Amino acid sequence: MLKNRARTAIAAAITAAAIFAVSGAAQAQQAPMAGDMKPAMAAPMMADRAKLLTSPGVFGNFSTYKLRSDYYKLSAAERKGAAAEVMAVVEKHKANIIADAYLTRGFEAQSDYFLRVHSMDMAATQAFLVDFRATRFGMYSDVTENLVGITKALNYISKDKSPDLNSGLSSASYTGDAPRYAIMIPVKKDAAWWNRSDEERLKEMEVHTQPTLQYLVNVKRKLYHSTGLDDTDFITYFETNDLGAFNNLLISLAKVPENKHHVRWGSPTVLGTIQTFETVVKTLSMGN
Amino acid sequence: MLKNRARTAIAAAITAAAIFAVSGAAQAQQAPMAGDMKPAMAAPMMADRAKLLTSPGVFGNFSTYKLRSDYYKLSAAERKGAAAEVMAVVEKHKANIIADAYLTRGFEAQSDYFLRVHSMDMAATQAFLVDFRATRFGMYSDVTENLVGITKALNYISKDKSPDLNSGLSSASYTGDAPRYAIMIPVKKDAAWWNRSDEERLKEMEVHTQPTLQYLVNVKRKLYHSTGLDDTDFITYFETNDLGAFNNLLISLAKVPENKHHVRWGSPTVLGTIQTFETVVKTLSMGN
Amino acid sequence: MLKNRARTAIAAAITAAAIFAVSGAAQAQQAPMAGDMKPAMAAPMMADRAKLLTSPGVFGNFSTYKLRSDYYKLSAAERKGAAAEVMAVVEKHKANIIADAYLTRGFEAQSDYFLRVHSMDMAATQAFLVDFRATRFGMYSDVTENLVGITKALNYISKDKSPDLNSGLSSASYTGDAPRYAIMIPVKKDAAWWNRSDEERLKEMEVHTQPTLQYLVNVKRKLYHSTGLDDTDFITYFETNDLGAFNNLLISLAKVPENKHHVRWGSPTVLGTIQTFETVVKTLSMGN
Amino acid sequence: MLKNRARTAIAAAITAAAIFAVSGAAQAQQAPMAGDMKPAMAAPMMADRAKLLTSPGVFGNFSTYKLRSDYYKLSAAERKGAAAEVMAVVEKHKANIIADAYLTRGFEAQSDYFLRVHSMDMAATQAFLVDFRATRFGMYSDVTENLVGITKALNYISKDKSPDLNSGLSSASYTGDAPRYAIMIPVKKDAAWWNRSDEERLKEMEVHTQPTLQYLVNVKRKLYHSTGLDDTDFITYFETNDLGAFNNLLISLAKVPENKHHVRWGSPTVLGTIQTFETVVKTLSMGN
Amino acid sequence: MLKNRARTAIAAAITAAAIFAVSGAAQAQQAPMAGDMKPAMAAPMMADRAKLLTSPGVFGNFSTYKLRSDYYKLSAAERKGAAAEVMAVVEKHKANIIADAYLTRGFEAQSDYFLRVHSMDMAATQAFLVDFRATRFGMYSDVTENLVGITKALNYISKDKSPDLNSGLSSASYTGDAPRYAIMIPVKKDAAWWNRSDEERLKEMEVHTQPTLQYLVNVKRKLYHSTGLDDTDFITYFETNDLGAFNNLLISLAKVPENKHHVRWGSPTVLGTIQTFETVVKTLSMGN
Repeated sequence: MLKNRARTAIAAAITAAAIFAVSGAAQAQQAPMAGDMKPAMAAPMMADRAKLLTSPGVFGNFSTYKLRSDYYKLSAAERKGAAAEVMAVVEKHKANIIADAYLTRGFEAQSDYFLRVHSMDMAATQAFLVDFRATRFGMYSDVTENLVGITKALNYISKDKSPDLNSGLSSASYTGDAPRYAIMIPVKKDAAWWNRSDEERLKEMEVHTQPTLQYLVNVKRKLYHSTGLDDTDFITYFETNDLGAFNNLLISLAKVPENKHHVRWGSPTVLGTIQTFETVVKTLSMGN
Repeated sequence: MLKNRARTAIAAAITAAAIFAVSGAAQAQQAPMAGDMKPAMAAPMMADRAKLLTSPGVFGNFSTYKLRSDYYKLSAAERKGAAAEVMAVVEKHKANIIADAYLTRGFEAQSDYFLRVHSMDMAATQAFLVDFRATRFGMYSDVTENLVGITKALNYISKDKSPDLNSGLSSASYTGDAPRYAIMIPVKKDAAWWNRSDEERLKEMEVHTQPTLQYLVNVKRKLYHSTGLDDTDFITYFETNDLGAFNNLLISLAKVPENKHHVRWGSPTVLGTIQTFETVVKTLSMGN
Repeated sequence: MLKNRARTAIAAAITAAAIFAVSGAAQAQQAPMAGDMKPAMAAPMMADRAKLLTSPGVFGNFSTYKLRSDYYKLSAAERKGAAAEVMAVVEKHKANIIADAYLTRGFEAQSDYFLRVHSMDMAATQAFLVDFRATRFGMYSDVTENLVGITKALNYISKDKSPDLNSGLSSASYTGDAPRYAIMIPVKKDAAWWNRSDEERLKEMEVHTQPTLQYLVNVKRKLYHSTGLDDTDFITYFETNDLGAFNNLLISLAKVPENKHHVRWGSPTVLGTIQTFETVVKTLSMGN
Repeated sequence: MLKNRARTAIAAAITAAAIFAVSGAAQAQQAPMAGDMKPAMAAPMMADRAKLLTSPGVFGNFSTYKLRSDYYKLSAAERKGAAAEVMAVVEKHKANIIADAYLTRGFEAQSDYFLRVHSMDMAATQAFLVDFRATRFGMYSDVTENLVGITKALNYISKDKSPDLNSGLSSASYTGDAPRYAIMIPVKKDAAWWNRSDEERLKEMEVHTQPTLQYLVNVKRKLYHSTGLDDTDFITYFETNDLGAFNNLLISLAKVPENKHHVRWGSPTVLGTIQTFETVVKTLSMGN
Repeated sequence: MLKNRARTAIAAAITAAAIFAVSGAAQAQQAPMAGDMKPAMAAPMMADRAKLLTSPGVFGNFSTYKLRSDYYKLSAAERKGAAAEVMAVVEKHKANIIADAYLTRGFEAQSDYFLRVHSMDMAATQAFLVDFRATRFGMYSDVTENLVGITKALNYISKDKSPDLNSGLSSASYTGDAPRYAIMIPVKKDAAWWNRSDEERLKEMEVHTQPTLQYLVNVKRKLYHSTGLDDTDFITYFETNDLGAFNNLLISLAKVPENKHHVRWGSPTVLGTIQTFETVVKTLSMGN
């Protein structure tokens, strides 16, 4: 949870926003580096990227967007300024959130890009996204999906409950090329799954985990818990540079009994390329 | 049920509306206090907030809205006046309804905000919402979901039928920080559920209630009955400041057998921040 | 079925329509009384309301509409004339159809109002609705649902097959306040239901009917058969002034075994207030 | 299959279309008679209507359309010319296709009209519909459903396999008034159906056919096979002047065991009045 | 996988795109030959069509598009230039991708055309599609479906596991007329399927393959694997000139037990005519 001072700052941000003040021009001078996978500089007043990406109790927010066609009726000059205005908003909120952006155009019908935002406080995430939507680029974007989750410590394959698999998970690490692709897949389990005992679910998750160990070297994973926060139980997030290996990993997950309890697995499955926020905005602002 | 005088007043309001009379300017002078969670002042001609939020036989109306993109093509000046016009409508109807507003932008794809309206008479709710939709802000809002329910006395875990659990429900109370978040989740049960005997359903609800007791301290709840009024059986409404605890509460509800009878649980799950009506309008009117 | 003369008149109406002739101005002088629940005057050339609402073999057409946002970009003056133009169309068709209108704004997301049209000939209904859609108000309305059915004599709880229940149905009658609310609920049964013998279905319908008898005093009902005419088997229509009683009635119907055979029950459930056609148009034409 | 010459003609038509040449004005002089149910004149270069409607191996294309609201922002004069432009396209393609049109406005939410096009070659159907969509009326129409099928000789109730029923089907014929209504209902069967033996399916179809014999006198039927061509297995098409009898026919089909294998039966069920193509365009072009 | 040089080239292409540079005019001089089924010329810097269409590890991208109605509000002159601009983009990317285009207007409600793009690297596919969407034609196109897959060597009916069927698959080959039609059908299997042993699935696929052998002479097929990349497991693609034979092939596939494991088979089934990219753009740019 946020300390009181930060929470007050967020409240102030919302209030400021409500006074119609997005003085983007002035702030656009120093485009920040909240792009993907790069460790955040240890600047004062900047959210700790490494910590947010590894701690439990962090909120993850995934939102997909489609640019409306009238965006391309703006002059090229107007669209040219879009990236700077967006980056000023990222800069404004850098103490409270980190934001990653992904380009999905060409891979998805329901989106052109998606955002992943982490924070210690959902209100901080909302304050950022409200400001983002008030930029020109945000105004011309329709949000097409929005999923919310919270990170937790491993609750099945922990050191205590499943020591061998846990050490398997810890010993191997990603050795492939820097990932260029990210995949977001929501997962919802049926009532029969949730009504099983903890032991039964642990056993299923061990069977689930075994075949995935071999893919630790070329697929990174991250899990968010969403029950009650959204119409899914989990948000699974992956990064890879080897989509063929990723396809094989997901087939191996289809083959375990746990799969019989999926009432939602995808819908949507969202595939994008990992980009800096600035590149996403610039790439989608092309055209004459 | 409403007394005759009130009912006549509502009819008059609708008729007045039909005569194209929304003289917003004059009424905008005294912005009322129908915001969230604050007890309504005991002014004459003002709906009794405490009573409406605790009595059986009260109608609850939940509606979600998405602002159309052309709202942001209005000048900033025009948008600046939106909040006053909306608050004048709230003031006009304050004798018959109470209205709470929540900001969902950044959390939801299908809405930017949602409203919860209580009244003793659904026609009064309609009269208010018709007037709200006739404001500039309302005109630029598309309603994306609308659910209607009625409050009732506890019908399972009552003093008579389940005295221990009933006293458990009564003894604990919310002790957390003032809630900043609200969640609305529709629930529909299958035919097998409804065809069970009252005793069997009582037993299931006891199993349902037991694990929820520990969350009384950090999650508030309210229930509305909707069978036949809408395509859901119940509307469940929660307030909390601890989304992690809320996630755990909903997981515990997923683990009881009653969950096997859910044909709708969410769809949508709507998460928003609790705001004053005025702040919601102002926040969404930003942008240049 | 219609007599030949009437059928010819309808054909002529369609043809006339095709010649771009909706001379609304002239006809708008005498606004007719085809509003809701009032018995039609026994004027020559006017459909017999009482007969159409009680006879078998009558076609019922339910259509829901949402006003497009650009309607409110018309000047208030233009919108002011909408009601007269609509009422002229009702007047033009009064010999062949009766039309009831309901205000759903504030209760439904998918509609602002709905219409119920009765006639002895579906082509007459179409001729009316084609003309209605050619009015300014109709042009700015998007139809969001359209269900078609036909009335029949009671085929389960008849005097012969189930004399006691039949007399129960006949003996009690509505004694509540004039209904202010109408609810339309489509119903579709599964193949298992239809494959049961007539006797088995009769038995189920008796169990279905028993708990509903007590609500005859405060809920009116009407049934339309739709198999093959639309993607539903039945359209059930209710009027009441007591939404709490109605909620209890529908819960009692959820509790009988017949409910296990519902593949559609609602979707949508449409709740509206009973209004005159003129009031619906005027109410939705407000705003400045 | 088409002879080479015809196929070349179609290819030429597509190429011509690609050269932006729809010289509607010149061709509009002789409005053709491709309207419904009337036998085509045996003119040279005109598709043989009787043959196309009775032969196996003919392609049937069903498409539903909704007029966009901006059509009514065109001047009445512009809309007045719509029918002639459409009929010129029908005339242009009369050697290769026959096109029937139906008015659904007032009966359906998802369409204002639908088309049924027959040809010996799907490319000819496409060439026609591409040209139709390039007319002003076609440009302002959104296609909302499109189903494709092929006719075959009776494969269950044939002379060999089921002689009695086959003669029953042949002996009775339509004796009612000229049908004014057409209904299009897609049908898809489940895997269990398709995995039954031919004998078992024949037996089911005999049970299916028996109760339908009595409706041969007032309901006409036609069947198209669609597996793999679209997301349905069959398109069933009916014409009648007696919608009550049609409702009874479909109820009798709901009562046979085959119904248990329907995964799609309708969705949409499309009901329209049988009209000439010209009347459909003119009727929907009304309004001022 | 791509060699480093090619990957750098793609990155450069994306960057260039981000600098608002689509200098279509200059490149439009030499319209390339990336049309369907024709072997690509062995020019330097051109993707090897034959290899991409037969190798494992190739990415296939299927996207369907609907032209927005406002495209037809552009002047005919503006639309006339659309094809050259699109072909310049195809030319620009010819070293990295091959693109096939299909006309679906007249067959499908959800699309006017679809694209199939092959590459050794998904980022190359994205770079092409981003540029395509930045053309005028692309800007006025709404993408309505997008499926992604990867090719693999035969994994069931291989020489080792099922030698007879494998040789059956190899011995027969397409002998019909040049195919004019293509069909794309997504397939998703249930958890029970994936949880079967490899041997059981092999046996099912043998039963699946047997009845398809006779259609090798008139239907071509190609398979893409999509699990985890999209909400489908497979994309099946067919080409034929005999839609009747194709319908029979798919019925024979409906009749094998494997069909019981389909949770998605179609939805959408997309049928189009095989065209050059240029013809697709020109045909859809018609109208005045």
